[in-house]
Amino acid sequence: VHGLDEFGLIARYFTHSGKARRGVGDDCALIDVGNHTLALTSDMLVEGVHFFSDDTPADIAHKALAVNLSDLAAAGAEPRCFLLDLALPQLDPAWLQAFSGSLMQLARYFHCDLIGGDTTQAPATSPTSGALVIAITAIGEVPRDDVRGRDGARAGDDVWVSGELGDAALAVRRRYAQARGAVAAAPLPDSVMQRLTRPQPRIALGMGLRGLASAAADISDGLVGDLGHILTRSGCGARIDWRLVPHSQAVAALALDERQAVTLAGGDDYELVFTADPSRREQILALSTPELPLTCIGSLCQQPGLHWSGLDGTRCDAPSIPLRPFTHFSGGTHHDRP
Amino acid sequence: VHGLDEFGLIARYFTHSGKARRGVGDDCALIDVGNHTLALTSDMLVEGVHFFSDDTPADIAHKALAVNLSDLAAAGAEPRCFLLDLALPQLDPAWLQAFSGSLMQLARYFHCDLIGGDTTQAPATSPTSGALVIAITAIGEVPRDDVRGRDGARAGDDVWVSGELGDAALAVRRRYAQARGAVAAAPLPDSVMQRLTRPQPRIALGMGLRGLASAAADISDGLVGDLGHILTRSGCGARIDWRLVPHSQAVAALALDERQAVTLAGGDDYELVFTADPSRREQILALSTPELPLTCIGSLCQQPGLHWSGLDGTRCDAPSIPLRPFTHFSGGTHHDRP
Repeated sequence: VHGLDEFGLIARYFTHSGKARRGVGDDCALIDVGNHTLALTSDMLVEGVHFFSDDTPADIAHKALAVNLSDLAAAGAEPRCFLLDLALPQLDPAWLQAFSGSLMQLARYFHCDLIGGDTTQAPATSPTSGALVIAITAIGEVPRDDVRGRDGARAGDDVWVSGELGDAALAVRRRYAQARGAVAAAPLPDSVMQRLTRPQPRIALGMGLRGLASAAADISDGLVGDLGHILTRSGCGARIDWRLVPHSQAVAALALDERQAVTLAGGDDYELVFTADPSRREQILALSTPELPLTCIGSLCQQPGLHWSGLDGTRCDAPSIPLRPFTHFSGGTHHDRP
Repeated sequence: VHGLDEFGLIARYFTHSGKARRGVGDDCALIDVGNHTLALTSDMLVEGVHFFSDDTPADIAHKALAVNLSDLAAAGAEPRCFLLDLALPQLDPAWLQAFSGSLMQLARYFHCDLIGGDTTQAPATSPTSGALVIAITAIGEVPRDDVRGRDGARAGDDVWVSGELGDAALAVRRRYAQARGAVAAAPLPDSVMQRLTRPQPRIALGMGLRGLASAAADISDGLVGDLGHILTRSGCGARIDWRLVPHSQAVAALALDERQAVTLAGGDDYELVFTADPSRREQILALSTPELPLTCIGSLCQQPGLHWSGLDGTRCDAPSIPLRPFTHFSGGTHHDRP
């Protein structure tokens, strides 16, 4: 609609102005406070856009905080505190109990205190109901001399991803199919559905990569989109062998097109994609665990754009799907972020 | 609905947990970062709840940032930066131009940089439209040894307000009357309407009161409500002569009941109510200007609650309106805040 996507929109109307060392366009803004550096990030989740109306309050609360913590993870920040703005359709004590219980559980796990915010009436969607809206601002701390954004990648760097990609997008497709009343094949394992409903912010990895990663982003819009932001902001390109992109057994069972779509352009994984000098390989592999493997999927090159090729330099077939990250205003329906 | 008001809700489900020195229940949360102390506040504005659908984008943007800066003013903080979350019904370049222009103008005036945030699709209110939602988190800095919240007031302190109260509530009533198609009397002066649409955060006053005020709040819910929070949190009461509460000529022209309602229980003024030891009177009056007069309206006492009396100790007639601050969930329609 008007040819502006979200990123164009932000760049055009809301370019930041000064004191922050990084800002609009990175996962986090960084500000210096005395000898300390804070990472700040804010995300808004809207009912019917970022979560389904029948998602449980515990899942919604988890996700609202997790997506913000995931931005802190990309910046290598240690979580410190957060503010919560909540537009509520009604005051339902059972709903609030479940919501706040889940929220506080995730907050405690990461030692990230709720320090303030606002509650208000939800936007009315009918005379008797409204849409839940949640906005969270999370604040973390990063070492002054090791700030990391999306612009530090250099040609020659390796490209890495954490964990497996595609489960969350697969789960979204299944939820939409269910909503349409489509008969599903075999039900997806809980482990796949939970990649959508209970994303795990990669805080420990993000902090472990301090001094190792040259650039990082969390994968909220899909690998192509989020790696694309790193490439654009760093002024380089990447050669990626899509066959190396790690995925689950559930994704392996999909047809080729769908497999490529969910692993490369699916959103909501909240894994990290990061770049690092090849001299760091051993140190990075030391951070890899059976629960959260780290996989090198290619390397950066001078030539701008994403080039699909084998790690040995031979070209491989480019994925057959249209590899654009989706954005809200060009028909996407899920979570997107500057 | 269920007997929970907003404040009960926050206290019950979202009590903050630790590192902040102040938090849920104050205008701002305060966190220590090295030798510095930051004040953080977050407010969400919802179309149809906090502003009218036909308000101009410039007015909406101004108000969204101003109400957050007003919280910083109450805490005596110097504004530093803010994050903006925006749920947009559509991408309208003219609307965005007007919105961002007004937002950035106010931000520049207070040297408060936009450092990040999120844009997303608005909650759908019909298949073709949605409700605008704006959440802003503002960050300011306060002196480490002079933090000020709502809990420092003591019996014997004077009670002061800045400016004039009631114009914003009067403007709201007029807007609702217009929306209902009611024939209005003489139109209100622009100066009155602008108290609603263009509230001025009292940053300079807030900083000027460092070391002078024992407690402060901004008047977003009405004098009775916001002074009431100070009294509750400070464990004291107040004797206020309502005839001393300053108001404009437009308010003076109202019938007694309506005059009391808009000055004492009307919201959206965004003036400051603060308390201070009587020994500070001269220093406080030195901050009073013709543009922003400071008025002592009473004093604090041991006996809990609000007591209406003359400053000379004689009782005066209690206002005849039901002096409860409105809250969203008990039928109020305007801006409310923890």
